[in-house]
Amino acid sequence: MNFHVLTLFPEMIEQGLQTSITGRAMKNNTISLQTVNIRDYSENKHNQVDDYPYGGGAGMVMAPGPVYRAYKAVEEGIFARDDNSKDKKLRVIYLTPQGRVFNQAIAEELSKEEDLVFLCGHYEGIDERVLEMIVTDYVSIGDYVLTGGELPAMVMIDAIARLVPGVLNNDASAEFETFHDNLLEYPQYTRPETFMDKSVPKVLLSGHHGNVAKWRRQQSLIRTANIRPDLLEKAKLTKEDIKFLEEYNKSKK
Amino acid sequence: MNFHVLTLFPEMIEQGLQTSITGRAMKNNTISLQTVNIRDYSENKHNQVDDYPYGGGAGMVMAPGPVYRAYKAVEEGIFARDDNSKDKKLRVIYLTPQGRVFNQAIAEELSKEEDLVFLCGHYEGIDERVLEMIVTDYVSIGDYVLTGGELPAMVMIDAIARLVPGVLNNDASAEFETFHDNLLEYPQYTRPETFMDKSVPKVLLSGHHGNVAKWRRQQSLIRTANIRPDLLEKAKLTKEDIKFLEEYNKSKK
Repeated sequence: MNFHVLTLFPEMIEQGLQTSITGRAMKNNTISLQTVNIRDYSENKHNQVDDYPYGGGAGMVMAPGPVYRAYKAVEEGIFARDDNSKDKKLRVIYLTPQGRVFNQAIAEELSKEEDLVFLCGHYEGIDERVLEMIVTDYVSIGDYVLTGGELPAMVMIDAIARLVPGVLNNDASAEFETFHDNLLEYPQYTRPETFMDKSVPKVLLSGHHGNVAKWRRQQSLIRTANIRPDLLEKAKLTKEDIKFLEEYNKSKK
Repeated sequence: MNFHVLTLFPEMIEQGLQTSITGRAMKNNTISLQTVNIRDYSENKHNQVDDYPYGGGAGMVMAPGPVYRAYKAVEEGIFARDDNSKDKKLRVIYLTPQGRVFNQAIAEELSKEEDLVFLCGHYEGIDERVLEMIVTDYVSIGDYVLTGGELPAMVMIDAIARLVPGVLNNDASAEFETFHDNLLEYPQYTRPETFMDKSVPKVLLSGHHGNVAKWRRQQSLIRTANIRPDLLEKAKLTKEDIKFLEEYNKSKK
């Protein structure tokens, strides 16, 4: 899986993804990361990439030319590497609050691509015309405003990369965790058995796998019901789960 | 505003926030950033911070001791700086998919605090007991799974920092943008007037401020209706907006 990022801050992307699991995956070539500095594609003598917005208003807008040329350079690189890729539509993701909201299902879908291009905006955004020409996906990582598209690109790359086979040491880890069955994860405990007068729940020390699994499932159900009841509506629940939740709700009243 | 981050990867946080607007705000002391390496508070001879989960299962869990001691060091630093802060409840944010979902309203609320502590988890999470002891806010940046809490902490710090007075050059910028009135932003254009046969919409060249404002408002309404109809329900709409949307919806059929 190859990630390509068009940005004004290539070092930020490189340093941020160097660490931990994504960094290790790059070292052993499970994933690759190419950053392209949009500023290198300015044809302006001061390397300027932004200009005043037509129609007036606060802030600056990124001009279409440098973004277009930076994208073309990435596209040419991909086509040169693999001639077959010309027939495929390259996915170009623009990070913007004006997009569909990123979630685990989109991460799974995108993790099946061979190449993904991310376009990071700054200032008051990017000239609309170049977006219409190159962008295939408008994606937002959430309903909040950030200073640029770099952090959202890193968030998406992290979420997608860990789904690429071979990136996580432990494949079970990616599967049995939050959002599995649309339920939140159960609480975790490790040594010491007693920490500042607080003990690990007895059931986890019992060695009885059935009881441990049942307790964890119930903790997941309770958490989801309390914190994210919206997820419960989409959750895959057994008859036992439903009965447990009914009794839990009664006991709360 | 002072940000404190408890993490296993302090360089990642420091490098990622050094750039652009947050970096500039740190240089002129509008905001400050302290990172604390949880590993420095391990009392284990190999500086180990994780251990196997009680009850079994894949992955490792971060032990309570190092997290607790790292937090106490931050708390002591804040109390030493400002004795009054002892009376206030320090906000300690744990980044977890098991949290309420971050949004612009939460960013605004948190931007009023003097100190914010962020706790970044890794592996399969952090021992539940230390979370119960120190965490005040469980926050998720969205419904997707990441390899650690560092990127979410950086996202939150970026979103919160830009609301701190003095961080953005242009105060108008923070106000008149996406999610203002709960509408998505209108498209932006800059020079050249014609880019690869594509022209800037005529109205933006007219110099007629009233017509520009009207066109932009209508573009915001159209975009929100098409991409995020869920936001329209919460949007502040004028009678003219509602009439425009009714006609737009009719014309689409």
